[in-house]
Amino acid sequence: MARSSDPHDLFASAQNGDRGAIARLLSFIERGGEPGRLVGRLAYPLSGEGYTVGLTGAPGAGKSSLTSALIGHLRSLELEVAVLAIDPSSPFTGGAILGDRVRMQDHATDPGVFIRSMATRGHLGGLALATPEAVRLLDAIGRRWILVETVGVGQVEVEVAGKADTTVVVVNPGWGDSVQANKAGLMEIADVFVINKADRNGVDETRRDLEQMLELSDLPSDAWRPPIVPTVATDGTGASDLWEAVGAHREHAERSGQLAKRRSFRSSEELREIVANRLRERARDICTGDRWDALSAAVADHSTDPWTAADDMLAGVDA
Amino acid sequence: MARSSDPHDLFASAQNGDRGAIARLLSFIERGGEPGRLVGRLAYPLSGEGYTVGLTGAPGAGKSSLTSALIGHLRSLELEVAVLAIDPSSPFTGGAILGDRVRMQDHATDPGVFIRSMATRGHLGGLALATPEAVRLLDAIGRRWILVETVGVGQVEVEVAGKADTTVVVVNPGWGDSVQANKAGLMEIADVFVINKADRNGVDETRRDLEQMLELSDLPSDAWRPPIVPTVATDGTGASDLWEAVGAHREHAERSGQLAKRRSFRSSEELREIVANRLRERARDICTGDRWDALSAAVADHSTDPWTAADDMLAGVDA
Repeated sequence: MARSSDPHDLFASAQNGDRGAIARLLSFIERGGEPGRLVGRLAYPLSGEGYTVGLTGAPGAGKSSLTSALIGHLRSLELEVAVLAIDPSSPFTGGAILGDRVRMQDHATDPGVFIRSMATRGHLGGLALATPEAVRLLDAIGRRWILVETVGVGQVEVEVAGKADTTVVVVNPGWGDSVQANKAGLMEIADVFVINKADRNGVDETRRDLEQMLELSDLPSDAWRPPIVPTVATDGTGASDLWEAVGAHREHAERSGQLAKRRSFRSSEELREIVANRLRERARDICTGDRWDALSAAVADHSTDPWTAADDMLAGVDA
Repeated sequence: MARSSDPHDLFASAQNGDRGAIARLLSFIERGGEPGRLVGRLAYPLSGEGYTVGLTGAPGAGKSSLTSALIGHLRSLELEVAVLAIDPSSPFTGGAILGDRVRMQDHATDPGVFIRSMATRGHLGGLALATPEAVRLLDAIGRRWILVETVGVGQVEVEVAGKADTTVVVVNPGWGDSVQANKAGLMEIADVFVINKADRNGVDETRRDLEQMLELSDLPSDAWRPPIVPTVATDGTGASDLWEAVGAHREHAERSGQLAKRRSFRSSEELREIVANRLRERARDICTGDRWDALSAAVADHSTDPWTAADDMLAGVDA
């Protein structure tokens, strides 16, 4: 099928449910630049109705199986769902279904399910900026439930997953050792805990471990207290409990005003980051030409220091 | 001993070999800001004579043992040495000797050896900017051999280690699986390969593996070809061979002009990064006040998109 590659046309097709068009628009977003920005501008006014659920946890915790189980449950409720699988470690997986996400392919032919792996392929702001843009696109074309799955527990993953409306942190029995590195970061973003692979030993200890950490975090009495949901994602056990927990968090967040507050904070943060990126692009533009070459050479031979040279370069921008 | 905390005074003490003063100046650099910058300005004109050797490799490859063995060898040649152990994953280790670096403590009381762990504690440019500043400080106060050890093979580690004059990549027999993730990045920065733990099986296969990768990288005939040095760091075997390989690379790099080229490139990159950081600080300053609040609210309620809002904010900076 011959098709226009103009973002406006693609956006219209995407609104009519054309999956190829959605995929191409997401590629524009991944690559950043003017076309990506145009997609963002088209989507922005139409977005705001969708609800995002982030899923994160250590590699091997079973996030993909859990996402797949959740898709199955949502489909049984006749809800449409879109999934973004975020992979910061791989710059080359964009658009492809990853090997370990093979289970999700069960849903690949269901028109009520849209699944896409995301990586950065040039977007200057990285996945931290590209992901909310992708979410808004899916939202704007009418996907009201958007699952955002990240592959690890590094800083980027936690940051991306923590920007969802409800964040699900997936652990396993005996998780303590595997994610020692970023436990605090995970505790901070969790709205719901899942103990996946709950058919293994150690579920009670893990629950006590999590509860103890929640005690220590000293939540105010009216704050949301993350529930702990055991699941066996591979056979779907607990998927409906998880969905109920997500719904309970949503209701609490809406009623308490937390959702509006969180979204407004996220939107300022994003704006701040876009401003910073613009300035970074400007830095790239500044750092060329004869003046740059001369100052750069002066720093290289230690006749001036780099801070003084930077002041000199920036004097032009201040004026 | 009562002591001034003025960077000028500390710098003078550091030049006289006062280790406490060196440590405090490095803390200024870690924290960034004006005092750190002042330390940088003091060090810059006096630096340029030192030579840096970067050591990187997967966790558990034995980098700390190897560094320790190298220190022992350098001391046997009556050379003074400074070691910076860079740990991007931990923001809290600054100044402390890490647990797994305990072997280096053998040298802790030797006045010819200075060892320091570095982490970022506020430096806006992160370790990528703080490390060269720390190296220049050590250089400026007369430490001519500076070893920079990084703890992992992530992007930051490879970036930091790759900025040395000679970069040593440490692998183990059967390394293939452990560092799959960033093999290409390691190949690119390696000036010398070490196969540490060479008393284990698989040294020949690992050597063939490395040689094959070097073939594939299709080096020009006059280019430096990274030698492969087997070592057993725990008993010092191979430390002198490694030092000879480093010396051979240095000689080649000096004769061919590569060293000058590399240093000049590094210095431009650093200047570019400093300019970008200044602009980032400026972004932080811009993103406050009534105008920011109004635009931020407009984005939050989707009445304007963040790119248009960013344009509006930045219009003031352009003028």
